[in-house]
Amino acid sequence: MRIKLTLTFDGSAFHGWQAQKNALSVQKTVSDALSSLFKTECGVTGCSRTDSGVHARRFVCHTDISRPFPVERIPAALNSMLPASVAALSAERVPDSFHARYSVKIKTYRYYILDRDQRSPLLEGRVCHWRRPLDENIFFDSCSLFEGKKDFASFMAAGSDITDTVRTVYSCRGFRDNGLLVLEIAADGFLYNMVRIIAGTLMEAASGRELDVADAIASRDRSKAGFTAPPQGLYLWSVEY
Amino acid sequence: MRIKLTLTFDGSAFHGWQAQKNALSVQKTVSDALSSLFKTECGVTGCSRTDSGVHARRFVCHTDISRPFPVERIPAALNSMLPASVAALSAERVPDSFHARYSVKIKTYRYYILDRDQRSPLLEGRVCHWRRPLDENIFFDSCSLFEGKKDFASFMAAGSDITDTVRTVYSCRGFRDNGLLVLEIAADGFLYNMVRIIAGTLMEAASGRELDVADAIASRDRSKAGFTAPPQGLYLWSVEY
Repeated sequence: MRIKLTLTFDGSAFHGWQAQKNALSVQKTVSDALSSLFKTECGVTGCSRTDSGVHARRFVCHTDISRPFPVERIPAALNSMLPASVAALSAERVPDSFHARYSVKIKTYRYYILDRDQRSPLLEGRVCHWRRPLDENIFFDSCSLFEGKKDFASFMAAGSDITDTVRTVYSCRGFRDNGLLVLEIAADGFLYNMVRIIAGTLMEAASGRELDVADAIASRDRSKAGFTAPPQGLYLWSVEY
Repeated sequence: MRIKLTLTFDGSAFHGWQAQKNALSVQKTVSDALSSLFKTECGVTGCSRTDSGVHARRFVCHTDISRPFPVERIPAALNSMLPASVAALSAERVPDSFHARYSVKIKTYRYYILDRDQRSPLLEGRVCHWRRPLDENIFFDSCSLFEGKKDFASFMAAGSDITDTVRTVYSCRGFRDNGLLVLEIAADGFLYNMVRIIAGTLMEAASGRELDVADAIASRDRSKAGFTAPPQGLYLWSVEY
């Protein structure tokens, strides 16, 4: 039977989601714990590849198990085997047609920015540190420019072989949370590094640099957008099916 | 001239504030950085001893320097020498009569609790994990019982040689912040482990155990109060002079 697992993890402990040789991945860590629990090799398919250093408040994956096991006990059983850097929040039985990646309807990311001179030891590896206060009004107003069905070619890392760069952003907003500047963006899908490039673009625009956000979007030209913001400020916030 | 320094630190990286043999302390770390900066031995006096694992959103200390140096540049200069786990937020010149510990008027602590079954990798070492939901109403209502000038003998770690156990709690309240249960308490001073024992008492009462908080306070008997909550949920939040 197919199981949908909701995880949360501290991305600084891993080289991203995807299993790879000679690097610790969330996928391999979770797959190993499932395999120990069910005494058989268990593959696990994630809702997205997250980069090294990117965190997940919620991350969804699926696995198939053949051994009978009370589904509601899976999280606690897994958590006793997983390292402190990753935890299972819930497990539920889903139809075999459910696919953690292909069945996603909306994914929401948040990007957290500490915009002050001094770094914060308590937020080390958890936020992007921009050393000067950013202009909130520019940041907030520019967010809405990303909403809608648009070609986001300017916001995709160079070298990607994706050809359809149109995505629908359902909402994009900025706000303050405990002094931090936050970007929250929900879409039907994201191009490679899209949220980090949007965050970098908003930070550059809000720092007073000459950067026309509307023009950057319209141009379909990566060089018109801002820098790729670092991974530690990024959180996969929620995934809807 | 005397300098008042405001710091922030991640307590999990240190064995508390106080310098000691064979253990990494915040005091020694900051004193070493100051000594390097001013090319002479610089002692530093803190506003309180914080225990191993306790964090500080704000921590105030003072030092005396003889070499002329632009005070406003001290934080950035220090931060370039301090490890990622501690940072200087501000520095200001104060009269020689200023004393980081004896001049304190109000200290405010916060205690953060994650009250759910699953642990949170992103809050590891940052909150106390209580594995069942706590009764918010009991928690919030019990907080007000701690307000006022009272004898807090029940809330002092055994073995302390303090004899005057009367303190004035200016405010004590509970609230939710991003799903976490928070205790915030401001007082003219605190007994050893006082906030952690109050937090433990509130958690036990809010978990439905037989524990009469008013009676625990009135009894002046440590055994009537709750357990000493672990250090990682505790933050020195602010210090007023």
